[in-house]
Amino acid sequence: MTATPRLLLDRPRLERNAARLRARCAELGIAFRPHLKTAKCAEVARIGHEGRTGPVTVSTLREAEFLAEDGFTDFLLATAVTPDRLPRVAALQERGARITVVADDPAMIRLLGEAASRPLDLLLEVDCGEHRSGTDPDGAALLAAAEAASRHPFLRLQGVLTHAGHSYGTGDPARLAEIAEAERVAAVHAAGRLRVRGHDCAVISIGSTPTLLYARHLEGVTEVRAGVSLFWDLAQLSRGMCGWDDLALSVEASVIGHQRTFPGAAGALVLDAGALAMSKDTGANAFMPEARFGILADAATGERLPLSVAVLHQEHGTVPVPDALWFGRLPLGSRVRVLPNHACLTAAGGHGGYDVHLGDGIPAARWMRCDGW
Amino acid sequence: MTATPRLLLDRPRLERNAARLRARCAELGIAFRPHLKTAKCAEVARIGHEGRTGPVTVSTLREAEFLAEDGFTDFLLATAVTPDRLPRVAALQERGARITVVADDPAMIRLLGEAASRPLDLLLEVDCGEHRSGTDPDGAALLAAAEAASRHPFLRLQGVLTHAGHSYGTGDPARLAEIAEAERVAAVHAAGRLRVRGHDCAVISIGSTPTLLYARHLEGVTEVRAGVSLFWDLAQLSRGMCGWDDLALSVEASVIGHQRTFPGAAGALVLDAGALAMSKDTGANAFMPEARFGILADAATGERLPLSVAVLHQEHGTVPVPDALWFGRLPLGSRVRVLPNHACLTAAGGHGGYDVHLGDGIPAARWMRCDGW
Repeated sequence: MTATPRLLLDRPRLERNAARLRARCAELGIAFRPHLKTAKCAEVARIGHEGRTGPVTVSTLREAEFLAEDGFTDFLLATAVTPDRLPRVAALQERGARITVVADDPAMIRLLGEAASRPLDLLLEVDCGEHRSGTDPDGAALLAAAEAASRHPFLRLQGVLTHAGHSYGTGDPARLAEIAEAERVAAVHAAGRLRVRGHDCAVISIGSTPTLLYARHLEGVTEVRAGVSLFWDLAQLSRGMCGWDDLALSVEASVIGHQRTFPGAAGALVLDAGALAMSKDTGANAFMPEARFGILADAATGERLPLSVAVLHQEHGTVPVPDALWFGRLPLGSRVRVLPNHACLTAAGGHGGYDVHLGDGIPAARWMRCDGW
Repeated sequence: MTATPRLLLDRPRLERNAARLRARCAELGIAFRPHLKTAKCAEVARIGHEGRTGPVTVSTLREAEFLAEDGFTDFLLATAVTPDRLPRVAALQERGARITVVADDPAMIRLLGEAASRPLDLLLEVDCGEHRSGTDPDGAALLAAAEAASRHPFLRLQGVLTHAGHSYGTGDPARLAEIAEAERVAAVHAAGRLRVRGHDCAVISIGSTPTLLYARHLEGVTEVRAGVSLFWDLAQLSRGMCGWDDLALSVEASVIGHQRTFPGAAGALVLDAGALAMSKDTGANAFMPEARFGILADAATGERLPLSVAVLHQEHGTVPVPDALWFGRLPLGSRVRVLPNHACLTAAGGHGGYDVHLGDGIPAARWMRCDGW
């Protein structure tokens, strides 16, 4: 029996989630470029594309290098690139990959142009309201960025990109539809401004899971990036984006202690899934405070239990129980699943890979991840 | 130039921190068993022992296996062991290692006794006030645990262990001295109860960084475990446990964006150190709210800057600036260090190892870590 803690990935749910995303993209008439920042896994990337390779989004060059080993060739690196990363971009290109990078600042584009040693496809990032990165789609910096790109022969402007990350702040369908429309308009408007000035703008890339789900239409958009919706998690569930039966990722943990005294409870279970196995993300709590650091589920069936992780130490998760009967139901050495707040961070917690099962919690395969940068 | 984000480890500070811990243990007349849950690194373990191997504490079997490769032979696995881990314990023993395990519950001890295939050194964990794990040092379960151990020929009771993790809740020296005394008394008292009943109890192991520093004496204690005090971090600094010049760990990040509009600030720097590079721990904020997700320091000198990370996304850290002059001082592509809240969690964030420098931020060596379980 493999030791816990370990990441469990429910393959049938993953496949169903992927099929729904593809169907949604088809309905909207846009290409799907799954974001592999969550899974960092070649098998998951293929399931995103119905068993084949296809265009993917990555958050690190490490992901692109890892997926390239598996035959993927079309990468969008969605975090702003810096000149010191260009040798690795060039190495990927030399192996036959197409890699599109993102920038927003004219000064950075000049640095990239000076550092580039071969042609580089580029998207300009615009800000549709999150204010994390990207320039004003209606501002002068966007045009200056395009001008800067046009002055460097190796920089090939391909279009624009935006990300409505602030869509995670609400679960209201009407508000999400508004944010989705603002995301669409920001990207399409920015592209229009560039096109009338003679710049190429074939790619209009948007992406956030909630806006993909709630957009009324995505006219003018060419592709969508979405990642966590392959796995789902409590943060998304708490906002109404998915159901309990869609949650594909969990952490299997062992009960390593029965704490008979715990303030405000009949005692506590101690799990061997702590802060490293789960992450300290509490993203679900804004809408579902009972989620705390993760909700427990039955190890075999995945059925939700009325218990959650209240305290996390590095290697301990403490689960208060309302009744001492739980010590009999979950004896020492028994196992549970813990449903994470934020799949992206939990999956990255040093697990190294996924124990893939068919819903029963019994691993049938091991799929590797690529963590780090 | 190596890509960011990356972990920087200041070797002179690490060596000074280790020397102070050894001096403190010598002053108290107890053995030092550094806890490698923070560093997970053989070179750091050796610096803990003045360049040699020596007894260490580990939080995972992976750490013990990794350090055994480097010649370490005396391990205390300080998280409660489960029977399914015993084959790995036995494999370590077969390679010549001594590994002591920890349990608190008589039922778990029975399971371990039934599963053990060779002699196993055991400490009984008692609770000195944190209520995370361990039994009441004055309770019946402690005696029942010792009795259970004595019934299994492979289980060799060696002593007791406790951890005053609740010492992180205060920075008040008088209160810390009280917690340290309670930790000492819990362990010594538990050992006394076992000894009068004829159980061996040569080892009395305590450990938390604040109680080691503030204990008035540790009479009766034989060894202390402490880990984060090799690196220090903002959580410890915020409680007065260390000074700014003691912080040995930082995350080097690149400025990948200049966000000109940011609510409540003159704009924001965008760093490529996000939630994966830093962790979402905010442990310093209870005593130092300005720490947020990490305080910035100069990349070359390590000198603190009046800036901190206010928002973390997976691969983005957003640093509001009070004045747009900061965009000139920290241009695109420039580097900073970020001082973490909690060294244990930041170091585990997928970095894979340390870029070791001599205070100047220029890596002179690469030391590997062992993450996972």
